[in-house]
Amino acid sequence: MVPRYARPEMTALWEPEAKYRIWFEIEAHATEKLGELGVVPKSAAKALWDWWATNPKIDVDAIDAIEAVTKHDVIAFLTWVAENVGEQARFMHQGMTSSDVLDTTLAVQLARASDLLLADLDALLAAIKRRAEEHKYTPTIGRSHGIHAEPVTFGLKLAQAYAEFDRCKTRLLAARAEIATCAISGAVGTFANIAPEVEAHVAEKLGLTIEPVSTQVIPRDRHAMYFATLAVIAGCIERVAVEVRHLQRTEVLEAEEYFSPGQKGSSAMPHKRNPILTENLTGQARMIRAYAMPALENVALWHERDISHSSVERFIGPDATVTLDFALARLTGVVDKLLIYPDRMKANMDRMGGLIHSQRVLLALTQNGVSREDAYRLVQRNAMKVWESDGRMMLLDLLKQDAEVTAALSDAELEDRFDLEYHFKHVDTIFARVFGNPR
Amino acid sequence: MVPRYARPEMTALWEPEAKYRIWFEIEAHATEKLGELGVVPKSAAKALWDWWATNPKIDVDAIDAIEAVTKHDVIAFLTWVAENVGEQARFMHQGMTSSDVLDTTLAVQLARASDLLLADLDALLAAIKRRAEEHKYTPTIGRSHGIHAEPVTFGLKLAQAYAEFDRCKTRLLAARAEIATCAISGAVGTFANIAPEVEAHVAEKLGLTIEPVSTQVIPRDRHAMYFATLAVIAGCIERVAVEVRHLQRTEVLEAEEYFSPGQKGSSAMPHKRNPILTENLTGQARMIRAYAMPALENVALWHERDISHSSVERFIGPDATVTLDFALARLTGVVDKLLIYPDRMKANMDRMGGLIHSQRVLLALTQNGVSREDAYRLVQRNAMKVWESDGRMMLLDLLKQDAEVTAALSDAELEDRFDLEYHFKHVDTIFARVFGNPR
Amino acid sequence: MVPRYARPEMTALWEPEAKYRIWFEIEAHATEKLGELGVVPKSAAKALWDWWATNPKIDVDAIDAIEAVTKHDVIAFLTWVAENVGEQARFMHQGMTSSDVLDTTLAVQLARASDLLLADLDALLAAIKRRAEEHKYTPTIGRSHGIHAEPVTFGLKLAQAYAEFDRCKTRLLAARAEIATCAISGAVGTFANIAPEVEAHVAEKLGLTIEPVSTQVIPRDRHAMYFATLAVIAGCIERVAVEVRHLQRTEVLEAEEYFSPGQKGSSAMPHKRNPILTENLTGQARMIRAYAMPALENVALWHERDISHSSVERFIGPDATVTLDFALARLTGVVDKLLIYPDRMKANMDRMGGLIHSQRVLLALTQNGVSREDAYRLVQRNAMKVWESDGRMMLLDLLKQDAEVTAALSDAELEDRFDLEYHFKHVDTIFARVFGNPR
Amino acid sequence: MVPRYARPEMTALWEPEAKYRIWFEIEAHATEKLGELGVVPKSAAKALWDWWATNPKIDVDAIDAIEAVTKHDVIAFLTWVAENVGEQARFMHQGMTSSDVLDTTLAVQLARASDLLLADLDALLAAIKRRAEEHKYTPTIGRSHGIHAEPVTFGLKLAQAYAEFDRCKTRLLAARAEIATCAISGAVGTFANIAPEVEAHVAEKLGLTIEPVSTQVIPRDRHAMYFATLAVIAGCIERVAVEVRHLQRTEVLEAEEYFSPGQKGSSAMPHKRNPILTENLTGQARMIRAYAMPALENVALWHERDISHSSVERFIGPDATVTLDFALARLTGVVDKLLIYPDRMKANMDRMGGLIHSQRVLLALTQNGVSREDAYRLVQRNAMKVWESDGRMMLLDLLKQDAEVTAALSDAELEDRFDLEYHFKHVDTIFARVFGNPR
Repeated sequence: MVPRYARPEMTALWEPEAKYRIWFEIEAHATEKLGELGVVPKSAAKALWDWWATNPKIDVDAIDAIEAVTKHDVIAFLTWVAENVGEQARFMHQGMTSSDVLDTTLAVQLARASDLLLADLDALLAAIKRRAEEHKYTPTIGRSHGIHAEPVTFGLKLAQAYAEFDRCKTRLLAARAEIATCAISGAVGTFANIAPEVEAHVAEKLGLTIEPVSTQVIPRDRHAMYFATLAVIAGCIERVAVEVRHLQRTEVLEAEEYFSPGQKGSSAMPHKRNPILTENLTGQARMIRAYAMPALENVALWHERDISHSSVERFIGPDATVTLDFALARLTGVVDKLLIYPDRMKANMDRMGGLIHSQRVLLALTQNGVSREDAYRLVQRNAMKVWESDGRMMLLDLLKQDAEVTAALSDAELEDRFDLEYHFKHVDTIFARVFGNPR
Repeated sequence: MVPRYARPEMTALWEPEAKYRIWFEIEAHATEKLGELGVVPKSAAKALWDWWATNPKIDVDAIDAIEAVTKHDVIAFLTWVAENVGEQARFMHQGMTSSDVLDTTLAVQLARASDLLLADLDALLAAIKRRAEEHKYTPTIGRSHGIHAEPVTFGLKLAQAYAEFDRCKTRLLAARAEIATCAISGAVGTFANIAPEVEAHVAEKLGLTIEPVSTQVIPRDRHAMYFATLAVIAGCIERVAVEVRHLQRTEVLEAEEYFSPGQKGSSAMPHKRNPILTENLTGQARMIRAYAMPALENVALWHERDISHSSVERFIGPDATVTLDFALARLTGVVDKLLIYPDRMKANMDRMGGLIHSQRVLLALTQNGVSREDAYRLVQRNAMKVWESDGRMMLLDLLKQDAEVTAALSDAELEDRFDLEYHFKHVDTIFARVFGNPR
Repeated sequence: MVPRYARPEMTALWEPEAKYRIWFEIEAHATEKLGELGVVPKSAAKALWDWWATNPKIDVDAIDAIEAVTKHDVIAFLTWVAENVGEQARFMHQGMTSSDVLDTTLAVQLARASDLLLADLDALLAAIKRRAEEHKYTPTIGRSHGIHAEPVTFGLKLAQAYAEFDRCKTRLLAARAEIATCAISGAVGTFANIAPEVEAHVAEKLGLTIEPVSTQVIPRDRHAMYFATLAVIAGCIERVAVEVRHLQRTEVLEAEEYFSPGQKGSSAMPHKRNPILTENLTGQARMIRAYAMPALENVALWHERDISHSSVERFIGPDATVTLDFALARLTGVVDKLLIYPDRMKANMDRMGGLIHSQRVLLALTQNGVSREDAYRLVQRNAMKVWESDGRMMLLDLLKQDAEVTAALSDAELEDRFDLEYHFKHVDTIFARVFGNPR
Repeated sequence: MVPRYARPEMTALWEPEAKYRIWFEIEAHATEKLGELGVVPKSAAKALWDWWATNPKIDVDAIDAIEAVTKHDVIAFLTWVAENVGEQARFMHQGMTSSDVLDTTLAVQLARASDLLLADLDALLAAIKRRAEEHKYTPTIGRSHGIHAEPVTFGLKLAQAYAEFDRCKTRLLAARAEIATCAISGAVGTFANIAPEVEAHVAEKLGLTIEPVSTQVIPRDRHAMYFATLAVIAGCIERVAVEVRHLQRTEVLEAEEYFSPGQKGSSAMPHKRNPILTENLTGQARMIRAYAMPALENVALWHERDISHSSVERFIGPDATVTLDFALARLTGVVDKLLIYPDRMKANMDRMGGLIHSQRVLLALTQNGVSREDAYRLVQRNAMKVWESDGRMMLLDLLKQDAEVTAALSDAELEDRFDLEYHFKHVDTIFARVFGNPR
């Protein structure tokens, strides 16, 4: 986790205090159910909740000091609670094992992190949608292989981004469901010393589902799927980031990241306006992707459990969620304030001498009886001249002068094929597919 | 793809002939709809399907020879079809672009691959379930950190594996839905030269959904999610493989891969019976995991499309699906024929002098009024003696001789805590959660 | 391994026949030394070499048929050799274990693969050098963040690429030394049944060093380092590939992949000339990078050895080396035939209204006594006007009209700062560093 | 970076203050040389060093506050220095660009990190060597595939680990040389505004080599190689960690991590002594490996530079070095204090009924004229009986009763093949190879 790429709400989730608060809730809810079941006195849970109602400060240093002796984090915490609550606290954790607390806590943290990320996605989707509608019919050249192909609209580019992040939301909801499970099943997961009812009670109170079969730990295929999903979202962020970086290139300059007044692009070159936010996002996407690999390696724990996953999760739990939260918010800002230059888009499109309409001519030729091979040859020989003139010759002019072409297509028929609006007749169809039917 | 780790049905999906068959179907279905829409003569599709009905051989070499000249695979294929079908073939591919064919074909291939993998998962789940029920109550020691913890049953181990692969099936169904989309949207995806109805028709005929917004290509976040999902499944395979490898270790030997009569374990050491299938699976899992990385990097294509994803998919399309198919089938065989040794499980469990019952004694002490800290200390001091005797001392004996213990627990109470069945009272609950209620 | 991305010489290295030939050589050399040491009759090696001198065909199918029964590849091979050589063959493999043969064979294969890759690098370096010298002083704009910065020469771009691949050569030589070791140490590597002299003899004959301590297998940290090194080389390939892709963009078009006469860029758009080779290389680089991950996971074998590395190496041994060989050769072709457009480079550079000289003005101002902060402000306010005019205003003109600027710099002093040659005065220095002193 | 997996000296390297100190040194050394060259007054460097000699506090907050306005870190720092040093400070950074400072600083940080890691490796090597010599002849069973194979010594296991880390040291030295380069070449790396002599001067003062060709940035193939090397070292750590985890398994228990008095292994099971340090190291190794991937993706910067590498390096620069430093130190502690149980090693070896000697019998049979196939069959049929008796039958006894065996080998000859010392005759040879000739 790099502080400059972290936002407070997500970061707070991973701080010791937040963790201990969840630990307490798990232990207290469990004690409550154990009381109902007659395993421990009902007074135990009452004592715990009464103390909790006083809104006690979590003394992280005191807990750390106990852990330095016991070398066991949960025992240290329980000892500290007992010091505060007194006698009744000895009924806590009855029949439970540390992993019941730790794994269920991770589930709560990841579920809450997911909720923040889902809100981030909503904000991003809203920003993309607003700009997409704004530029629904702004013509711009579509590019394949970095080469001008045929016209699209800037709104279509954004609709594509919207569809990706909309899928990401669906994926994240599924990933959230994967990890939002509660395991209170005791040592090696047999419920030998704790009734399954306790698990059901804690799960309900914390908004989790029960883990059907835990083996002291919640199985790590769930977490692997979760972090793999974050990696896919990161890939989608990178796609938009790379798009902006391309559009801001000096020769293209169809869009730019917002450049605030006092900002300096370069210590040496005062004219520079660089797409640094999206370059930065590109790097962050690489990191979030990388965090999926150790999560995948974590799945194959030894027997009922080993603890190799734990050090990995101390890194990637906060690092992946905090960085993704930051990246989504940063991308939302980039989209929201993106400087978009329709004039430049038009100018870029025009500099190809009409080559972008070549396919329509090809189709018109075949429709008028020319074989596909011949039509391809006729269009290509004129297109290549335009290409080599660097846009100074116009394809329409050349075609009108090509006898083999004019044998099949009149001037009027040719001119008709150079109409820009022709390309946008299904923009509405696509927008309806992506955003739902227009209001 | 390594031939020895490949099965014929999955491999066939990725051979040129299979690909060309799908290409033809896409082109012919599209031509059919174009005929209905009046864009091309209805006779065109008829000519194509009539020829197809003759069950023509796909002449891969001939197509390759054409591609060597045109340097374009789809044009080469169309040319070859035209050579066979004649005049009417020139109406094929009207308004389409190569990616319409290529990406929709990949969708069909990955969907079919998914179906094979789903069948593999079903077979694996059936094998696991059969062995789980067989050993539902076979006692074995649960291990955390590789160290004996408390008793479980061998059936519970398998129930855990079942639950993982059951989740994998859900994930794979979702991943299949992600990639089973059809894009017939023409250059840069605007439908400028082909009506959306064609896409809808082809999609329906091929069992795909339509791609809401394509940009000449189907967006690669879908494929990233797909290969990431295969990576998670690989992780689950590795977990079972590692479990078998551990169980087959000389000192443990609670289970063994089936060892066939003429088999030789080692050229030098004739007594060796090695878990080579599961070691092999461990390596294959590493490969399948690795294939997710380039799929994730493929997402950020430039603008409407670049073709960097293509070389990656020529590798991972077949390599990941073929290897996973093989691995699932191999694992099914391993589970199906696994030699399981309940006597050895019992013997291993017994060699710890009863230490595995220590927690129950701890709980009994606290329930009879000893503080948690004191109870822990009392149990640990006796447990450590047993531990250091290497299982020659019995924990029950030592506890009966410890005055501080006997002050709180009678001999009968102590003996009661050493009952194995105690641990299995919720096996049925867990089985019902995992496999549904018993028949 | 994808056949279309494979060249015959590298591919042949990984075919069964090549492998069996190395196996025979290892066994025969070992038998020879065993004969010298008096462990087996000297006649045994003679019989082997006499048969080998007849240049026998390696009957891969026959060996496979034996393996189908024994389920052990080395035993199958030894059996086949014995069938051909007769009685004396029983002295082969005395005291050896399969891994002695397999691991030493992999060392030979990877060493030979390295030699091909080193030759590839030499060819690539030669091509880069030739083009670099050709364009040593061809002016082009240097870009940071995709934005015009200050002038460089096209030769400098290539010099940078040369330096990277020159480092790759050094790295590959080190990686080759890592894996070119011979282990003939018997079961678990103790030399209990085979004298270390045999290992030394085989190593010398095969051009390998001895493995100081093997544990039946050669340790896999060596291979991890090897495949990690290939991954770094792939990264360098990707850098050049991405550079060409950028330069070929429609709006930039400063260079292009060679476009051969009959080639078709797009089935739909006949004017397209796409950087498909370098896009293809970008994808291949992703694959080669991915292969490093399972190699890194292979290091932690269990105890003296497990065989999980083996299935991984059946994939990445050929896949990484064959693909890298192909990629290096493809890149060499791209560089060798790259169409370079100096006029377009000049035109692109000029369209910024002289902004690229802004830093020199900044320096001149500070040198004439203006504070850095003021100088930055003065240059930036004029630069921003040029920027916003889209290159229609000229920075030099604006500066001459800015009283605060002219208070510090005369017109002549300003003009002097707009000299292109100024930027190239150290090109020779850099070339000497990279290519050695000029001839 | 996870605080609990971080040691202060390495962590300090990455703190803002350390970074700013290096920034100052680079700027001051450069100003010094610029003074010598007559580009700026000699008084400028003097003013800088005079102020530095007062040991000024680096006011990180003040610099941050300036950056919040300028949005440029180097300009913020220069402004802060100017506020402290006064007038003369305006000559700083003359002709330089931010990357000159940032990249050279990263070189210094990584070089210093490498020095700490090299010291860590030395400490680890010393610990391994000490324990290896202590157990040079401690017999233990060698295991392949987790199955007993033939005897080795515990010293040999450690010699193997020593050889791996010795190679790691060589690799790290090479990786350090890769990244320890200085670039002071100005915008886009042409030295247009700064003489190469400045670079040479700064390089010498900071103990770096000059970067032959930089393009504003130091090329990232160097850093990719660096982090890939750390990943390989992590793999070697994991190998030892996994070995200890195996040895500590309940059924094996040939070695244990040191278990300190007040330590509690489990909150639920007081008898547990778990290999938590090495499990923890296993997870850390996964992380350090993962950090190599984004470093490899960083290589392909756009044109002369983009800044996508920067956010990646803010993570992996500290995270990979700090975690590796911690992991090496933790592993050194594990090795240093490892509890080693020779008696248990002996007991484990003996429980196989002498099967581990089977190969020697096989060889003896072939040497006395039995064909290899027959010999294998004879040994295997007796070995299998022992195997199935779970070590209750003794191989030697069975062989003496097998008429086909005794036809070839006398009882005395058979007994001779069951001598343990036979396996250790080359331990000294191997130790000499690994540790150099014995003192």
